[in-house]
Amino acid sequence: MKVRLEPAPVSGFRFAGVSAGLKSEPDRLDLGIIVANQPAAAAAVFTANQVKAAPVIIASERVRQGRLQAVTVNSGSANCFTGKAGLKLARDSCAALAAAIGCTPELVAPCSTGVIGHLYDLDKYRLGIVEATKALGPDRLNDFARAIMTTDTRAKVASTTLRLGGVQVTVAGVAKGAGMIEPKMATMLAFIMTDAAVRPPTLKQTLVKALPASFNAVTVDGDMSTNDTLILLASGAADNRALAGRDAAAFDEAVREVARTLAHELVRDGEGASKLVTVEVRGARSVRDAERIARSIANSPLVKTAFFGCDPNVGRILMAAGKTGVLFDPDRLELRVGGIRLAARGALLVDALAAAGARMREREFGIMLDLKLGKARAEIVTCDLTFDYVKINAEYTT
Amino acid sequence: MKVRLEPAPVSGFRFAGVSAGLKSEPDRLDLGIIVANQPAAAAAVFTANQVKAAPVIIASERVRQGRLQAVTVNSGSANCFTGKAGLKLARDSCAALAAAIGCTPELVAPCSTGVIGHLYDLDKYRLGIVEATKALGPDRLNDFARAIMTTDTRAKVASTTLRLGGVQVTVAGVAKGAGMIEPKMATMLAFIMTDAAVRPPTLKQTLVKALPASFNAVTVDGDMSTNDTLILLASGAADNRALAGRDAAAFDEAVREVARTLAHELVRDGEGASKLVTVEVRGARSVRDAERIARSIANSPLVKTAFFGCDPNVGRILMAAGKTGVLFDPDRLELRVGGIRLAARGALLVDALAAAGARMREREFGIMLDLKLGKARAEIVTCDLTFDYVKINAEYTT
Repeated sequence: MKVRLEPAPVSGFRFAGVSAGLKSEPDRLDLGIIVANQPAAAAAVFTANQVKAAPVIIASERVRQGRLQAVTVNSGSANCFTGKAGLKLARDSCAALAAAIGCTPELVAPCSTGVIGHLYDLDKYRLGIVEATKALGPDRLNDFARAIMTTDTRAKVASTTLRLGGVQVTVAGVAKGAGMIEPKMATMLAFIMTDAAVRPPTLKQTLVKALPASFNAVTVDGDMSTNDTLILLASGAADNRALAGRDAAAFDEAVREVARTLAHELVRDGEGASKLVTVEVRGARSVRDAERIARSIANSPLVKTAFFGCDPNVGRILMAAGKTGVLFDPDRLELRVGGIRLAARGALLVDALAAAGARMREREFGIMLDLKLGKARAEIVTCDLTFDYVKINAEYTT
Repeated sequence: MKVRLEPAPVSGFRFAGVSAGLKSEPDRLDLGIIVANQPAAAAAVFTANQVKAAPVIIASERVRQGRLQAVTVNSGSANCFTGKAGLKLARDSCAALAAAIGCTPELVAPCSTGVIGHLYDLDKYRLGIVEATKALGPDRLNDFARAIMTTDTRAKVASTTLRLGGVQVTVAGVAKGAGMIEPKMATMLAFIMTDAAVRPPTLKQTLVKALPASFNAVTVDGDMSTNDTLILLASGAADNRALAGRDAAAFDEAVREVARTLAHELVRDGEGASKLVTVEVRGARSVRDAERIARSIANSPLVKTAFFGCDPNVGRILMAAGKTGVLFDPDRLELRVGGIRLAARGALLVDALAAAGARMREREFGIMLDLKLGKARAEIVTCDLTFDYVKINAEYTT
């Protein structure tokens, strides 16, 4: 299945992104909306953080009914830790869009991203909604993608098409996020649209199945956002037969691959990141063990600075594996960096270090740790820790 | 109890630090020894990392007998992930010192710190031992402290004196470590000597009681070393009465305060660190909850870059608290930064941000998060994440 890093029209949906003046920088797009022609089947997952933003609280209530007609998203303010005023602001924001497109406010889900602890200006937001509904078009997904960016350096969209239930179906997704990225239940903000006809309970299953290999398998800095939201919308405009058997599997795969492509785009654009590194742990006794070790390596500041320095630092990788508490035998494991074997039978293969260092100069490479204890494996995609990560986060307030 | 950041002679012990040519930089001290006139009561704790260095394996076996006469420490190589050759090297290193001072090798504990995966040169080590034993003196603790440094920018020693069992007693400690610091059982390398007469089982209890508020309450980067070792030695030369009651408590306090002072020195000299920040969590339902939250805040790269940027970033602190999975109510908590209240009753106190930012420009400050749920508290001491942390770790191989 080929996933392209570009938008595609999805029957039944229109998009817009406008500048409402919510960000301190003038003229930057900061308000995006997704509008379905009819109420669409909807499923969503949200942050597991105990501190949840107001829009997360409202959106998670509203998606429970399995239908949404619109999503309204602002950047510049996370509307988090804003108390009752924040909840009212999120509801009023939805009401503005609902009035403009003629649906009930309960069919609109709000999302916010930006600085925590501050409200945004509702009057500006309302004027922005008027502009945005005027600008709505089936080919405006890129504008929407740009409007939801914060420290992202580029818009992130992905799409694929497939034949399903006798018809051609499209799955297109969009995401934002560059820092505060280690989703446990979802990601920063991501939206995936399809014109396939899918019942809400099936849609939720598709979404949950897509997570382990996509948004839940990436990290930038091990920090979990208060605003993580992933919404999957299905308009049904493709008018396919009910999904079953091979069709259902193909649809699951399409959503998972679009989600995975977007998740990797988040890491590729991770704050200050210059490299994308896939950390694979094999031969573990359980998937949980494999994932704990992969995550520990992927989040270790010492490992991530070594990635930045193109240093094939076996010691730091083993240190990060060993600190997890997972039992393994250092004398049995095998470690490869950029495909080059660096450790086996309890010893460092010193002669191979230079070749591995050369591979690490590439923008993307993998490391593979085989514990040789069992058959379980896990993979976490991460980036390096650079001067620019420190610069961005010492100078920018999230 | 006053702990000074300077060495003090401890009756019954002599120290030395010499250059044995084990480090790539010539003339840098890289071999340190501690020698007791007689076998001393000894207690120790070691890294909980699953990947343990050869000297950690040997030293943990030898300290079980409760007596040690000497410790030999090299910097430049961690002698970790070096298989059987590494174990033999650690034993041979101890044997060299044992022969020079005339004791059995089983009374010598080895320690190493530096790059993982490489052996050091035993011939150079043996010549270094000859030099070191010639240089031994009761006033050479500073030389020893310098010999065990790696990325440390300064030697770390601390000492105190107290009256105990009718006599004056000294407790002096020395530590090294700047990165790969989040000890769970011990720290990088630390040694505390006393001339008090203390039985080995009591000494072990004293050591274990000293940990929670000292080495186990600090972090630089959340990464746990493979070589963490903390050894406490008591020569008994002060010839005090057996410790009991108030004396026992005073001795525990002296060891704990020397340990805490050294642990804070590690963080103050943390790789690239420009600030020391005490993260206190109060009002938790359990110490475990309080510690999980304090540790999460203290290790969050987003929080630590905000410290560097003097940014009183309430959102990131609450994000780091919320991602732990510990249940609390964001509407009830209170947060202070540098003593200034920034969050209460579910809202950010925007007017106080500037004053808190000014406090953060100081080299040391505290943050206090009160969950208002219970009576448990915990404190973790950390540093900021700076350009220099990235520089040091992208360019230096550990």
